[in-house]
Amino acid sequence: MNNEITKLLLGVKDGTVSVDDALLELKKQPFKDIDFAKIDLHRKLRQGAAEVIFGQGKTSDQIIKIVQTMQKTGQETIIITRLDEHKAFSVQKKIKIDYRKEARIGIAGKLPKPDGIGPIVIATGGTSDIPVAEEAAVTAEALGNQVVRLYDVGVAGLHRLLSHLDEIMSASVIIAIAGMEGALASVIGGLADCPVIAVPTSVGYGAAFEGLTALLSMLNSCASGVSVVNIDNGFGAGFLASRINHVLKS
Amino acid sequence: MNNEITKLLLGVKDGTVSVDDALLELKKQPFKDIDFAKIDLHRKLRQGAAEVIFGQGKTSDQIIKIVQTMQKTGQETIIITRLDEHKAFSVQKKIKIDYRKEARIGIAGKLPKPDGIGPIVIATGGTSDIPVAEEAAVTAEALGNQVVRLYDVGVAGLHRLLSHLDEIMSASVIIAIAGMEGALASVIGGLADCPVIAVPTSVGYGAAFEGLTALLSMLNSCASGVSVVNIDNGFGAGFLASRINHVLKS
Amino acid sequence: MNNEITKLLLGVKDGTVSVDDALLELKKQPFKDIDFAKIDLHRKLRQGAAEVIFGQGKTSDQIIKIVQTMQKTGQETIIITRLDEHKAFSVQKKIKIDYRKEARIGIAGKLPKPDGIGPIVIATGGTSDIPVAEEAAVTAEALGNQVVRLYDVGVAGLHRLLSHLDEIMSASVIIAIAGMEGALASVIGGLADCPVIAVPTSVGYGAAFEGLTALLSMLNSCASGVSVVNIDNGFGAGFLASRINHVLKS
Amino acid sequence: MNNEITKLLLGVKDGTVSVDDALLELKKQPFKDIDFAKIDLHRKLRQGAAEVIFGQGKTSDQIIKIVQTMQKTGQETIIITRLDEHKAFSVQKKIKIDYRKEARIGIAGKLPKPDGIGPIVIATGGTSDIPVAEEAAVTAEALGNQVVRLYDVGVAGLHRLLSHLDEIMSASVIIAIAGMEGALASVIGGLADCPVIAVPTSVGYGAAFEGLTALLSMLNSCASGVSVVNIDNGFGAGFLASRINHVLKS
Amino acid sequence: MNNEITKLLLGVKDGTVSVDDALLELKKQPFKDIDFAKIDLHRKLRQGAAEVIFGQGKTSDQIIKIVQTMQKTGQETIIITRLDEHKAFSVQKKIKIDYRKEARIGIAGKLPKPDGIGPIVIATGGTSDIPVAEEAAVTAEALGNQVVRLYDVGVAGLHRLLSHLDEIMSASVIIAIAGMEGALASVIGGLADCPVIAVPTSVGYGAAFEGLTALLSMLNSCASGVSVVNIDNGFGAGFLASRINHVLKS
Amino acid sequence: MNNEITKLLLGVKDGTVSVDDALLELKKQPFKDIDFAKIDLHRKLRQGAAEVIFGQGKTSDQIIKIVQTMQKTGQETIIITRLDEHKAFSVQKKIKIDYRKEARIGIAGKLPKPDGIGPIVIATGGTSDIPVAEEAAVTAEALGNQVVRLYDVGVAGLHRLLSHLDEIMSASVIIAIAGMEGALASVIGGLADCPVIAVPTSVGYGAAFEGLTALLSMLNSCASGVSVVNIDNGFGAGFLASRINHVLKS
Amino acid sequence: MNNEITKLLLGVKDGTVSVDDALLELKKQPFKDIDFAKIDLHRKLRQGAAEVIFGQGKTSDQIIKIVQTMQKTGQETIIITRLDEHKAFSVQKKIKIDYRKEARIGIAGKLPKPDGIGPIVIATGGTSDIPVAEEAAVTAEALGNQVVRLYDVGVAGLHRLLSHLDEIMSASVIIAIAGMEGALASVIGGLADCPVIAVPTSVGYGAAFEGLTALLSMLNSCASGVSVVNIDNGFGAGFLASRINHVLKS
Amino acid sequence: MNNEITKLLLGVKDGTVSVDDALLELKKQPFKDIDFAKIDLHRKLRQGAAEVIFGQGKTSDQIIKIVQTMQKTGQETIIITRLDEHKAFSVQKKIKIDYRKEARIGIAGKLPKPDGIGPIVIATGGTSDIPVAEEAAVTAEALGNQVVRLYDVGVAGLHRLLSHLDEIMSASVIIAIAGMEGALASVIGGLADCPVIAVPTSVGYGAAFEGLTALLSMLNSCASGVSVVNIDNGFGAGFLASRINHVLKS
Repeated sequence: MNNEITKLLLGVKDGTVSVDDALLELKKQPFKDIDFAKIDLHRKLRQGAAEVIFGQGKTSDQIIKIVQTMQKTGQETIIITRLDEHKAFSVQKKIKIDYRKEARIGIAGKLPKPDGIGPIVIATGGTSDIPVAEEAAVTAEALGNQVVRLYDVGVAGLHRLLSHLDEIMSASVIIAIAGMEGALASVIGGLADCPVIAVPTSVGYGAAFEGLTALLSMLNSCASGVSVVNIDNGFGAGFLASRINHVLKS
Repeated sequence: MNNEITKLLLGVKDGTVSVDDALLELKKQPFKDIDFAKIDLHRKLRQGAAEVIFGQGKTSDQIIKIVQTMQKTGQETIIITRLDEHKAFSVQKKIKIDYRKEARIGIAGKLPKPDGIGPIVIATGGTSDIPVAEEAAVTAEALGNQVVRLYDVGVAGLHRLLSHLDEIMSASVIIAIAGMEGALASVIGGLADCPVIAVPTSVGYGAAFEGLTALLSMLNSCASGVSVVNIDNGFGAGFLASRINHVLKS
Repeated sequence: MNNEITKLLLGVKDGTVSVDDALLELKKQPFKDIDFAKIDLHRKLRQGAAEVIFGQGKTSDQIIKIVQTMQKTGQETIIITRLDEHKAFSVQKKIKIDYRKEARIGIAGKLPKPDGIGPIVIATGGTSDIPVAEEAAVTAEALGNQVVRLYDVGVAGLHRLLSHLDEIMSASVIIAIAGMEGALASVIGGLADCPVIAVPTSVGYGAAFEGLTALLSMLNSCASGVSVVNIDNGFGAGFLASRINHVLKS
Repeated sequence: MNNEITKLLLGVKDGTVSVDDALLELKKQPFKDIDFAKIDLHRKLRQGAAEVIFGQGKTSDQIIKIVQTMQKTGQETIIITRLDEHKAFSVQKKIKIDYRKEARIGIAGKLPKPDGIGPIVIATGGTSDIPVAEEAAVTAEALGNQVVRLYDVGVAGLHRLLSHLDEIMSASVIIAIAGMEGALASVIGGLADCPVIAVPTSVGYGAAFEGLTALLSMLNSCASGVSVVNIDNGFGAGFLASRINHVLKS
Repeated sequence: MNNEITKLLLGVKDGTVSVDDALLELKKQPFKDIDFAKIDLHRKLRQGAAEVIFGQGKTSDQIIKIVQTMQKTGQETIIITRLDEHKAFSVQKKIKIDYRKEARIGIAGKLPKPDGIGPIVIATGGTSDIPVAEEAAVTAEALGNQVVRLYDVGVAGLHRLLSHLDEIMSASVIIAIAGMEGALASVIGGLADCPVIAVPTSVGYGAAFEGLTALLSMLNSCASGVSVVNIDNGFGAGFLASRINHVLKS
Repeated sequence: MNNEITKLLLGVKDGTVSVDDALLELKKQPFKDIDFAKIDLHRKLRQGAAEVIFGQGKTSDQIIKIVQTMQKTGQETIIITRLDEHKAFSVQKKIKIDYRKEARIGIAGKLPKPDGIGPIVIATGGTSDIPVAEEAAVTAEALGNQVVRLYDVGVAGLHRLLSHLDEIMSASVIIAIAGMEGALASVIGGLADCPVIAVPTSVGYGAAFEGLTALLSMLNSCASGVSVVNIDNGFGAGFLASRINHVLKS
Repeated sequence: MNNEITKLLLGVKDGTVSVDDALLELKKQPFKDIDFAKIDLHRKLRQGAAEVIFGQGKTSDQIIKIVQTMQKTGQETIIITRLDEHKAFSVQKKIKIDYRKEARIGIAGKLPKPDGIGPIVIATGGTSDIPVAEEAAVTAEALGNQVVRLYDVGVAGLHRLLSHLDEIMSASVIIAIAGMEGALASVIGGLADCPVIAVPTSVGYGAAFEGLTALLSMLNSCASGVSVVNIDNGFGAGFLASRINHVLKS
Repeated sequence: MNNEITKLLLGVKDGTVSVDDALLELKKQPFKDIDFAKIDLHRKLRQGAAEVIFGQGKTSDQIIKIVQTMQKTGQETIIITRLDEHKAFSVQKKIKIDYRKEARIGIAGKLPKPDGIGPIVIATGGTSDIPVAEEAAVTAEALGNQVVRLYDVGVAGLHRLLSHLDEIMSASVIIAIAGMEGALASVIGGLADCPVIAVPTSVGYGAAFEGLTALLSMLNSCASGVSVVNIDNGFGAGFLASRINHVLKS
């Protein structure tokens, strides 16, 4: 590439290349030889078993087309997240999908066999947090993980959580999902010795501020080994948990 | 009193009272016969054993004078809160006080004997919360309560807290003090069956926002029976706990 | 229990127990012998007369089932909070409940006789705060308390509040409910000598920020003996007031 | 002025004025004939008795020069606000000023005789609010008002405030100054029938957020006739009160 | 009243009065002799011409009843604020009211003749601010003021505002109403020499945060003589302006 | 003008002019001779090719009338922003407009030929940002600019952005539009050497806080040469970009 | 354990156990047999190689004592975090520690050999972020990880980051540390296919709000696989990264 | 490059390349051929006349070294921003710099001749905003622009601003700098027809929130053509203004 620049500058010197053209050329050089078609290939290789479509803001027709294209190129498992019931119904007329209502996820193709390091435990503080938890759970399953669900084990009834110490102790990753004051993340973080992903939810009212309180609370967890994703971001937690659970395999 | 108004209006009618004067008089009537000297008496009767002086913003001379006046009128126990070490030293030159450095409280006179319903348990999440806890503890003691201190029992090490279930179960009031994510209030609220006063502290950094996160977290506690006072307000918590602990006696 | 650990380590030594298994076992020990079935019994013993179901987010079918199960186990009084009119109508087809529309509470069974230390006074700043107040009031009644209602006694018309000094003076607990600037809590806190529970409401507009201003205002009350619960949390206030009012009996 | 524009356009037409020059000229026309020297005269006429210098951020030398210039042009009373003690000392070496330490105001010349409609009442919730109150009070006095000071009449001790109903009822304007929860504004607003200017102060700690809570609280006052100025803005309140108190005379 | 207390204490001494009863009696003394029926009379005397009903949250039946009661006691002018069109229609079936749609105010009876010190000028930044302005305007008219409307004179087109200098200069009070960045208050505050009441509106989008930006902006006005009321609080501004405009007459 | 003042003061002296009248006259002098009719002319000259009507909050009838008036006075291109589909349909019955649904802009007349310094590049992070981008794009086109659209080039897939380095390098202005974390502005700011206008959008959920996060992020861009407009303010960005792109021509 | 309860209830029946005592006993049962001394053992087993002391808020004497006790019980590596230079100097007089000034960490004993899955890459946006990065790096090293440092690779100069694609691609975990707008996390998240831990720093000024902007930005990352810890929490990031990097081994 | 990938996959097929190595290679491909040394060259070409060093957080020794290196490579003008007086003094011992105290900028070498499109006008609301303004001014001058300073022309005294209409009308870019309520940006935006860069400053107190209010206000400017940079970011404004003023030349 050095040759090119030398040539260019010689061109400037003998007048066959204008200064403006040379300047523009110089600016573009660093990124010039990138062949972006290849990127798509890499991206697929990187992201594990299933391909993910973010369903929200797309029409059912758009979703159908994307799924069909992916399937033609050999993609075996595809999940469509944030897919509401009505749109799922329309999609199902054209494509065979397994629709998980609570998770708001549609699955085209088979879920892969779990090939992660260990089980991913998903715990929620209350029953209202379950939709977020299911989004995380189905995402993790679609990316090749075994999932253990511990729902409604909030800290106001500590014994419910403590009765599941076995699951907590043998998890390779834990996703702790809670609204209101989000204390679940700290309590689990204090008990477990694996990475804990905390997901604040918009469950609560008044000074819960639609998840802000749980978010701040989880960021300040007094337990080490806890990190946080965006409010209600079940997909993000499931995706990250899978990455951790496949950390040596990617 | 109806007579007075009648008289007033007659005065207006026959011209001996101007309209302006009558108007002003009418406005003042509702509160007219209040004899405010008596209020001071009531106030003392109401507030239990010790009298409280808020030391911050007062000079040591001012504090000395107030204490001496109170003592002359027979007040046996007086506490001075938010009293820094330097000022305490100056006060001690003139008045005999027992200075509790960590609580930043000076005590003139003897602490009263506990006469509350039961013990007040004061728990903290960490060791940095202890100054706030001591402010609460000494306040409660000065107002006639037995205090049980459970310090550094944060939820990241749940076993430390659980090893004190006896104290928690036999308390008549619990004060739960924590910074960072403030989860202690929820966990104690879930274990105890007495009123829990939560005190957020400014302990923490970053997104702890000087106690705001703990405050919001405690307000959203998933456990029932928990209420909250201002950030670092150890005095307020101790005072309120004493009121609850004397609820049938006041 | 020391024996168990000794045994375990001997097993490790002679090879009959793998290191991994022993490690997992050690981690679980501290919580091992907990018999959680008993917890439910305790919980009921602790929480006084009525059992509470949080109705929001549950279907009428779910509510019916829970009530019927509770009644079979001998629970005499059950309240269902945050129960909207429509759902109450559905529930009433299967179960006999007394529906309090303003409080959004359904009551199955009889309200218990008051057995608290004294009356609980519930005061509101305006008429718009009444739904929150009724939630508190019915909750407190269901838990065995006598309730005195002082509605629309906001500080802009101080005389309305002052005309009820008798009730304020003889209360064992006061719940002060207000939106907008929430000044009611401070004024009542200054008059009363019993614990005051402040409930900010989302009443107001503009810079009331849906209850945030009242919340902050109440947390900063210049009167001692005041604590705060979440915005619009009538249930929480009623529940806590009952705990205070039964403090020596639980 | 229409002639000028006509001339200008004719110039464009016959080529003696370029399009660019004409465009620029047209843009400038609306403000062209303003004689700004006169503004200074107006400003002085408008702002009543004393002239005000904002002392903060100015050196003592700068202040001395400004005062001397003003005095030469016949200004009889000049106040310097936000003047710290140290700087006041330096100024006093060159100019005779009456320094009010608590108000942080220096006064050059005599205070004018009160010529307002009635007395301005300045009330504070606590003793820590007094510096702000004094800034308001001295400002108002310097602008020709009689001031009545009611300090430390916060709502936690309602009787202190009620014992001054006479003053409240006969004020033409009231300035209510408080930190913490700022309830004083609402209570005074409910008692008085004159305009009330509320000044939040940064007094308080924790969730007082350096005056934000008092500010929001005062903006949401349930009493009518209350408006608010910036946190700790004693000068602004005193200035506005004087304007109201001279409303028919300006 | 001293006699009563003496008597009470003697009763305690000779055993005819129990200590508890005496204590309660002492607490109630300060407010004992207040005859609150009189308050209503005072309130009416204080608040000038029209009586105000806050329509929001009241049914049309409730409104009708309140108006009829007021009219029976001789009230000539009554305004109902925050009255939506639909409810106004229902009210009009029973009572003759003049409904001002833009102001969302219904007027029963005649508007009084203006008797204030001078005209109240009401200026808005844009046309979207007009509903808030009309609420202020009709309120002020109903309370006996002459109102001058200057709508859509925002600072982005300074000439529109400057062309009304006459009105601005001869006002006794100005109400400056604006959303977005709220700069109108500062510009008018710099031009006028009468009190300026700033009303932030929720007009705007994005970082206008439903009026918060305008509110903060107005509180920080670099012009003196400006104070602020709550977001969209047209009524409050009109009411306060009237108080200022009648300051010598109340 | 000095003469006028002299005359005025002489009038005061000999009694033919009252002091009040003279005072008012003096106050008005500085702005007296402004002929505001001319302003309208200037304004039109300044704002380039098309005239802009803000459609939101205006009825279709109002819009039609304004357009017709503008067209009569010779305005060739008029755009109506924030025009929803339904209203556009009504307007089209009376006036011929080209309605761009995604941009929510109606165009009356022809778009002008681009006469700016160079192309304006408009880039978005995702597909959900396109409506804001189209508002910017059509605005810029209507004001005489060539627009290059680079949509869905968010930083999570850097290669998509890098494959358009040519366009980025040859732009005279770039508008970077993104929601969520708004990182696009910084990355483009680091690559480009022309002015970059960042537009945060309300795209995202949870802690995106309806555009606040993107807004703050863009304001703190570590790249120089970036400035920010309000959330979702596509029009503002397009308008400003055009001003920059015509900077030597206005 | 069921036997115990049976016994207890029989005791209640025949009167040898009071109801109060039985009630208390029942409440304590669930947690009764926990032997908490064992917990300490577990904790040590769980937390991998080095033991961590949080130095802030502890005196050098306290630190020395804790280290000496740990060393006696056989702990080979101990790190002291948040240890300022002055205190480190005092500690070094008694104990041999390797003090890393930039990381503010003291190390007693040898750093362990890396035994994690792969290298941990630590990247910073600027040079001011290095102290936080070093805290993370030394923590990770002390817990048995190989660390690769990529400092000052902020997105404003994308080529600096892209020149390290090799390191990014072969990492098992990446810690992305940035202040200001925090865009680094998104760009790295889009390039890498391993878990990314984002650490917002308080670097920046104005609307960076001491790390809040970077925090919000990182939580909203458009790239998947990113989670966030508290502002400036280098230790937490290093600790979590180590947990992920040892996920199969703990 | 397609060949390389083909070769790579063939290697995988015949076993000479491991799957892991091939995977890593594929991931790196897209960015492989970038020659980053060239970037530095581009960067210099892009950024116009002077090179900028951010002085804050650098020692005087570091600054000296960077300047000397730059000078050796032929850089004629170098500015050092955020350079405090003390550090400037140290630098001056080794390098000849012209230190502008108010702007906190040191200049090594000569300022270039202005070669921009027109003058850049820099206006401030008050005198306290001048340091930020000078940072902008010196930056712009160092980058080859003519600067016109209009200081202390805040909107509370509109005539001061209006007397400079000539300068405003003939500017190619305007930088409007103000704290408090930041109204200056809107007023200038309404008068000018060139791009306006608004810089909020941290000047003010109370609800100015260290520049936040001015920032929000400026983002919501009702005038078109205004964009905003970070609080107190004088450098950023000067840099951007220069880019705009050289838009056709870069």
